[in-house]
Amino acid sequence: MTEARSASKSGGKSEPAPSIVKFNIGGKKFETLSLTLKKFPGTRLASLHPQADEYNRDTGEYFFDRDPIAFGCILNLYRTSSLHFPDHLCGNYLREELNFWRIPESLVSECCWTVFFNAEQDNQIFRNLKKTFSFLDKDPRLNEAGKGGMELWMHRIWLLLDKPNSSRAAKIWSTFYMFLVFISVSLFCAQSHPTFRVARADVSHTMRNITNPKIRMYHETNMRPELYWLDVACVVVFTVEILLYLLCVPDKGRFYKSFTNVINFILVLVAWAAFAMEMTMGDELLDGKGVTYWTYGTLKLLLVLRILRFFRLSQRYSSLNVIVLAMKASFNELILMVMSFFLTATIYGCVIYVVEIHSNSFNDIPVSIWWAIVTMTTVGYGDFYPLSGVGRTIGTFCAICGLVVLSMPIAIIAANFNNFQSRNEERQQRRRGNQNTPVKKIGWMANVPIIHQYTSNPMDPNSLSTKAKIKMITTKPQNRNN
Amino acid sequence: MTEARSASKSGGKSEPAPSIVKFNIGGKKFETLSLTLKKFPGTRLASLHPQADEYNRDTGEYFFDRDPIAFGCILNLYRTSSLHFPDHLCGNYLREELNFWRIPESLVSECCWTVFFNAEQDNQIFRNLKKTFSFLDKDPRLNEAGKGGMELWMHRIWLLLDKPNSSRAAKIWSTFYMFLVFISVSLFCAQSHPTFRVARADVSHTMRNITNPKIRMYHETNMRPELYWLDVACVVVFTVEILLYLLCVPDKGRFYKSFTNVINFILVLVAWAAFAMEMTMGDELLDGKGVTYWTYGTLKLLLVLRILRFFRLSQRYSSLNVIVLAMKASFNELILMVMSFFLTATIYGCVIYVVEIHSNSFNDIPVSIWWAIVTMTTVGYGDFYPLSGVGRTIGTFCAICGLVVLSMPIAIIAANFNNFQSRNEERQQRRRGNQNTPVKKIGWMANVPIIHQYTSNPMDPNSLSTKAKIKMITTKPQNRNN
Amino acid sequence: MTEARSASKSGGKSEPAPSIVKFNIGGKKFETLSLTLKKFPGTRLASLHPQADEYNRDTGEYFFDRDPIAFGCILNLYRTSSLHFPDHLCGNYLREELNFWRIPESLVSECCWTVFFNAEQDNQIFRNLKKTFSFLDKDPRLNEAGKGGMELWMHRIWLLLDKPNSSRAAKIWSTFYMFLVFISVSLFCAQSHPTFRVARADVSHTMRNITNPKIRMYHETNMRPELYWLDVACVVVFTVEILLYLLCVPDKGRFYKSFTNVINFILVLVAWAAFAMEMTMGDELLDGKGVTYWTYGTLKLLLVLRILRFFRLSQRYSSLNVIVLAMKASFNELILMVMSFFLTATIYGCVIYVVEIHSNSFNDIPVSIWWAIVTMTTVGYGDFYPLSGVGRTIGTFCAICGLVVLSMPIAIIAANFNNFQSRNEERQQRRRGNQNTPVKKIGWMANVPIIHQYTSNPMDPNSLSTKAKIKMITTKPQNRNN
Amino acid sequence: MTEARSASKSGGKSEPAPSIVKFNIGGKKFETLSLTLKKFPGTRLASLHPQADEYNRDTGEYFFDRDPIAFGCILNLYRTSSLHFPDHLCGNYLREELNFWRIPESLVSECCWTVFFNAEQDNQIFRNLKKTFSFLDKDPRLNEAGKGGMELWMHRIWLLLDKPNSSRAAKIWSTFYMFLVFISVSLFCAQSHPTFRVARADVSHTMRNITNPKIRMYHETNMRPELYWLDVACVVVFTVEILLYLLCVPDKGRFYKSFTNVINFILVLVAWAAFAMEMTMGDELLDGKGVTYWTYGTLKLLLVLRILRFFRLSQRYSSLNVIVLAMKASFNELILMVMSFFLTATIYGCVIYVVEIHSNSFNDIPVSIWWAIVTMTTVGYGDFYPLSGVGRTIGTFCAICGLVVLSMPIAIIAANFNNFQSRNEERQQRRRGNQNTPVKKIGWMANVPIIHQYTSNPMDPNSLSTKAKIKMITTKPQNRNN
Repeated sequence: MTEARSASKSGGKSEPAPSIVKFNIGGKKFETLSLTLKKFPGTRLASLHPQADEYNRDTGEYFFDRDPIAFGCILNLYRTSSLHFPDHLCGNYLREELNFWRIPESLVSECCWTVFFNAEQDNQIFRNLKKTFSFLDKDPRLNEAGKGGMELWMHRIWLLLDKPNSSRAAKIWSTFYMFLVFISVSLFCAQSHPTFRVARADVSHTMRNITNPKIRMYHETNMRPELYWLDVACVVVFTVEILLYLLCVPDKGRFYKSFTNVINFILVLVAWAAFAMEMTMGDELLDGKGVTYWTYGTLKLLLVLRILRFFRLSQRYSSLNVIVLAMKASFNELILMVMSFFLTATIYGCVIYVVEIHSNSFNDIPVSIWWAIVTMTTVGYGDFYPLSGVGRTIGTFCAICGLVVLSMPIAIIAANFNNFQSRNEERQQRRRGNQNTPVKKIGWMANVPIIHQYTSNPMDPNSLSTKAKIKMITTKPQNRNN
Repeated sequence: MTEARSASKSGGKSEPAPSIVKFNIGGKKFETLSLTLKKFPGTRLASLHPQADEYNRDTGEYFFDRDPIAFGCILNLYRTSSLHFPDHLCGNYLREELNFWRIPESLVSECCWTVFFNAEQDNQIFRNLKKTFSFLDKDPRLNEAGKGGMELWMHRIWLLLDKPNSSRAAKIWSTFYMFLVFISVSLFCAQSHPTFRVARADVSHTMRNITNPKIRMYHETNMRPELYWLDVACVVVFTVEILLYLLCVPDKGRFYKSFTNVINFILVLVAWAAFAMEMTMGDELLDGKGVTYWTYGTLKLLLVLRILRFFRLSQRYSSLNVIVLAMKASFNELILMVMSFFLTATIYGCVIYVVEIHSNSFNDIPVSIWWAIVTMTTVGYGDFYPLSGVGRTIGTFCAICGLVVLSMPIAIIAANFNNFQSRNEERQQRRRGNQNTPVKKIGWMANVPIIHQYTSNPMDPNSLSTKAKIKMITTKPQNRNN
Repeated sequence: MTEARSASKSGGKSEPAPSIVKFNIGGKKFETLSLTLKKFPGTRLASLHPQADEYNRDTGEYFFDRDPIAFGCILNLYRTSSLHFPDHLCGNYLREELNFWRIPESLVSECCWTVFFNAEQDNQIFRNLKKTFSFLDKDPRLNEAGKGGMELWMHRIWLLLDKPNSSRAAKIWSTFYMFLVFISVSLFCAQSHPTFRVARADVSHTMRNITNPKIRMYHETNMRPELYWLDVACVVVFTVEILLYLLCVPDKGRFYKSFTNVINFILVLVAWAAFAMEMTMGDELLDGKGVTYWTYGTLKLLLVLRILRFFRLSQRYSSLNVIVLAMKASFNELILMVMSFFLTATIYGCVIYVVEIHSNSFNDIPVSIWWAIVTMTTVGYGDFYPLSGVGRTIGTFCAICGLVVLSMPIAIIAANFNNFQSRNEERQQRRRGNQNTPVKKIGWMANVPIIHQYTSNPMDPNSLSTKAKIKMITTKPQNRNN
Repeated sequence: MTEARSASKSGGKSEPAPSIVKFNIGGKKFETLSLTLKKFPGTRLASLHPQADEYNRDTGEYFFDRDPIAFGCILNLYRTSSLHFPDHLCGNYLREELNFWRIPESLVSECCWTVFFNAEQDNQIFRNLKKTFSFLDKDPRLNEAGKGGMELWMHRIWLLLDKPNSSRAAKIWSTFYMFLVFISVSLFCAQSHPTFRVARADVSHTMRNITNPKIRMYHETNMRPELYWLDVACVVVFTVEILLYLLCVPDKGRFYKSFTNVINFILVLVAWAAFAMEMTMGDELLDGKGVTYWTYGTLKLLLVLRILRFFRLSQRYSSLNVIVLAMKASFNELILMVMSFFLTATIYGCVIYVVEIHSNSFNDIPVSIWWAIVTMTTVGYGDFYPLSGVGRTIGTFCAICGLVVLSMPIAIIAANFNNFQSRNEERQQRRRGNQNTPVKKIGWMANVPIIHQYTSNPMDPNSLSTKAKIKMITTKPQNRNN
């Protein structure tokens, strides 16, 4: 700070006029000592000289057609050697200005870097949202042009099956599909309960020595026939759907890359395999041994995966996608949470085992770790709990540690979700606004056909190609100034 | 960015003076290249020409009586093709300025849209609060004018019953009513406990085969007579109240639309129907079969709805309304929470059932889903818990998943409530401030009767009709400049 | 907005020069149409005329020595009829400016009222903190002047007992006192456990019919003698302390108003009463009936209140006071939380009772409400849990409702605590800074004795009396300009 | 405020020109009354006089080459006697400006101190992060220069063992080491479970009277031999590692100060001591009495500390360090949480003991405090729960109190973690940006070799020595202006 003063003192006296440089930045006047500008050579301001195009000999000022606010901050860099920004300015805009004035970003002071960090984070969020919801932006019906006959029908079937917002029929189908998935999952859950099963006439006697009541139930009873055939009907519909979809999807490659499609395909195969075994084989399916028995059991268990079909819901409820995006963005925090959680649980588990060595509970360390986990998440089943005074003290700290350890990453995850969710709502609000704009504002746009040049992609004015921008500048004056 | 430079280079040399446009925006000077302004045709700035009214030939400037801060941002749009705003400016004010300069909102860059989004959200919150608390703003006593005799009394009774803040008597009545509701609900709760029941002399023998001890108790005992008659007294008061209210309410249509009124009415009917049955019929009410028995039981159970009468409290405690508003505003997040919660619980329920197939617990999938729910909410009753190592690992992730899945929407709901609550406090603070203003500031307002023109509705200076505003501008100068 | 334009059009043409008013606000120039200023009569700007003192005939400007930033916002009010503020400005400063320009606060637009609301909240927080920690600001030793002999010693004993930060001895005494309280509470807790009791030789036979094992223990055993006499020793110290304190406290009136002092006094009386009974009476203390027995039991139970002595800790740990302040500031939210919590719990309790009427659990409604409470707080003891499918569904929603209902007010309470805590840290940082300032900056202050006029209370430069300010302005120029 | 007006009135009339002082602050003009400036003598502005270097006689202005925005705020201090700042300005930058204008920080108004407080907090966070991650900044390979033979190899081995990011081999070693630690901890956990133990042939008969099944197991079974020797192998590797490390570490003093190193050393000693006892002694290790038995048991239990080796993970996962930093920064809040938690738990424990004195549960006060802890953390094992109505009411408030008491400090701890985490991400983003900058921007830097003067430490432009800065100012003009 002192050198600025001293410079002003020494330089100011001898030749006051030449040492002051004047700027006219978009109409706002700035003045500084010429010495000040030499501090950071290589930047645009340091290389100014009176022969430059920007120098106006009449007024003795350098004129730049830029924003004066950012320039004020940048000029302070020369004065005080540290570059601070008010934190209400947009980081993307500041980056542009820094670029223009040729200030390297590394000169921004540590405390004011937040502006750029936040802007970068928001850009990242918008990029992720755009990528995830890109299917909403494209109108697939545009591709129908130039298709005919069979091809057109295949395209339409694909739209019906895969794009719920392409037509009213597609919306109905999508709702019906979700209803079927719900039925199918409910049937899987219900068939595990005795209420929805009937006794088999021919219980194989070899099976009687099974003691597990759950597995006994599967051997001794069948699913109620009406439910069984309802399940088969669901599988039929899913099969028809996946076959039609496979037939009609325009891009077969992407079909195989989609996780949900592959799961869907496998599920249909598994269901038919199990059905075929049930139809063709009899008692050996339940004879409790052999390859057939284990294959059949595994197939039946694999059917539990049908619950994954629900993830198609995310096509309709964008918030589910937002949850997934927020989880991905919080990946580091999730890893950190799980790591620090298990580390703390292991420590407390080992400690409680040692401390409660004389009690009847906490028989081994894995069980003690399970107790620590149940305590740290504050679930507290009550299957294990400390009985000695020392053990209870450790239990207390275990619960508090769990609250603290879990609260820290969860706060960040929740904040990330909040960010994604509000940015998504912003995006939707903007989309609605843009769709309405032409209608509301048609008045001033009516006689301005040239405006389509930049409203063709109104979401992103920055995406104008450099060529288009140059054209805009060079050609428009001729259109207008005549 | 580079084209601005190059434009300055090429254009600057040949004819430097004419290419620069000068603005005087409310006293602040701005300068830019005329080429720059042509970038966005159709906007107000692009259509400027020296014959315009705003052009001042003496100074060579365009004069606009607008705010220079927003203009600075808008001028940057022409310079850099992207429109950024500092995030401390009020979105409503920026929207006005954009309108004035005829910039479509779609040109605002994605990263700076937040300003408008937040303003829109706050406007929404204020609208909701205004609608909900509109009954506080209107003074119902104003309507008494022109009423006489019977009509006036009916109006006063309605005020007494429905507007707790209309008079001291109404406040007392409202407190007494809440006390009665509390008594009535307490009686319903108490009568289910043996302490508050006495044995019946004439227990019908046919009932002895009921095994459920709770239902047996209802058959074998009666409510203590003093409590029974207290309950009847409460019902009498409620009946008188609802009849008086129905008689005196000015707008019968709104009576039937109000949920609480309808509930109130049904409750009174149910209570009298049950009372009538008790008075007229004897043992057959408790004979365990037949329409009479089931009707009586259902009526008795329906009386539980009397707890809904508590929602009248929300008329007195505005924070309860704020909770409801925050829940409504978070409707999407609530749906999302319930959906993702049940989806995750079903997945974990199915998985734990499969994993713990050999244990004695987790008998069917619905029960396993119940376990997953109890674990994810960290309630942890301890009625079910995994016993195998794999099951415990899944239980751990189930609990952590629950914490994460629930924390995300709950953070948003809590933030919404926070917003509504602080906006509501702001509103109340403003109301108090406005009521006090005339008292405190009477000095400078005393000799300015004309000020009532805009303080008649001091809450909302924007609500001045356009006509009034025009009148203000056109007539006042004559009043004053003489 | 359009009228501003049209005004500029019509007014601008006929007589452009006179219609524009120029301002010089602290060096910054503003211009507006004279018509604009007439919109809000009664304000300072509306009453300007060329004969005013502020009018400078040479430049044709009105000069005000005020801040130009706030003036810019206020001028916008005249232009657009709505008063918006950027939200980074300090509300207290804006209020001053509004006062100066005579703009009533009711004209501030609803969306920008937040600035004032936040400033008011922060002022409130600072006021509360100042009041609570006022005892830290005053140095009680200053009062020693003019005291002698007995009086001085009494004063010093009072400081020792009541002001932990008055001297090193007082700090040691305070720590020792806390240690004694800890011992005393620990003894109370320990004496309830059989480990710390010894069998009595003379167990009265009449007592043998007591079945409650806890009360039996008190009859059949005595506290270990070493612990008993340690407890008596603690009571002796507390008695001496309270007597000395009562003797030496300068303001007897405040002694009786302090809650902790009264509790302290009562506790000492109770302890001595119980001790006297133990010393003078024998078996009749434990004969299980009669006034003596019940009196003695009640006295013993009242001793539990000794835990309240811990609240003296708050004198030493300011964070405990901050918790209390945050709770007081969140009083409305706490009431709301408890109210909505019990309301929801009652509803769920009644519903689960009705739904689980056929199960063996949930015997009456009070117990069902207890279940709802245990579920909503996610404590989940497991003493009651639903068994039917419908009951479990209701249990699920009960748990989620609990999370939502509790999360909303708790978020506000936590935010309040955060606010208070960080404002308190700010205050402490400032105090430290101020104490250090004179030391560090002695250089520039050394030859400026007049500066004490405003640094006598460096915390609060606003507290300068108006008289002092006027003196400052009128006298200093003479001191200096000579 | 009024005196400013009145001053303008009186002073303005008599001699309007001399009383106004004009400033040119970096090109922006400010004007104020000369009286105003005299308010705070001792500051730079108060001591201005027309003979000062800064006074420009041609324009009649004082010229300062400083930022005009901060000057505007500071001038307001003279006008209104209170110093407010907009809260978007960086505190570090404001501090510099206050220093320049010689305004003591104590004049900043209480409500606007937040700016400085936040800046100080951020500085603190950056300092802590820099200190913690300093080992990442230094490249240890630079020290290899001038070392040869043995010394070079020792240095390389040290790098391999201690600096995971120094080479690919070191990274592999570090991963392998973590894997070994995982194996070693797993073995300790596993050996407590009967599955991983085999019966001993020679169970000493004297031991049969041990009733505790866990200790019996240790006497009657041995660890499976393959696991036992795997454990020994791990210990061998750890021993070799610690010996090599001890041999090669350049700074032996720091070795003994590191907590993890000492633990590591002790663990190896303990493991070998236990191993030696097992090898040399037989039955007396498990004879249940004597020094040998207890020593051996203690050594075995001490091995649990091997879990602490996991803390070496924090070298690799910086987020773990961030957690530790956040905990340290929240130390006050953690203490507060534990203190208020135990205080509240003790109160509720004593109260529930008194209230439930007639029930069979809550046998003594320590157990009642344990119940209160389990309830307040919402763990709710179900080992104790109230049975009476009053007890349940107290349990309800206990749970709610726990939620409130815990939520307050946890919110601050989570916010602190959030701060540290995002500042750390900022730091990493900046580091990446700086590393990339020279590559991306080589174009404009290529012909500017002098720029290395300030990019040698691009992270910290403020660290330029005063000497270098003066040189920059005094020498560069000569280089350039020629």
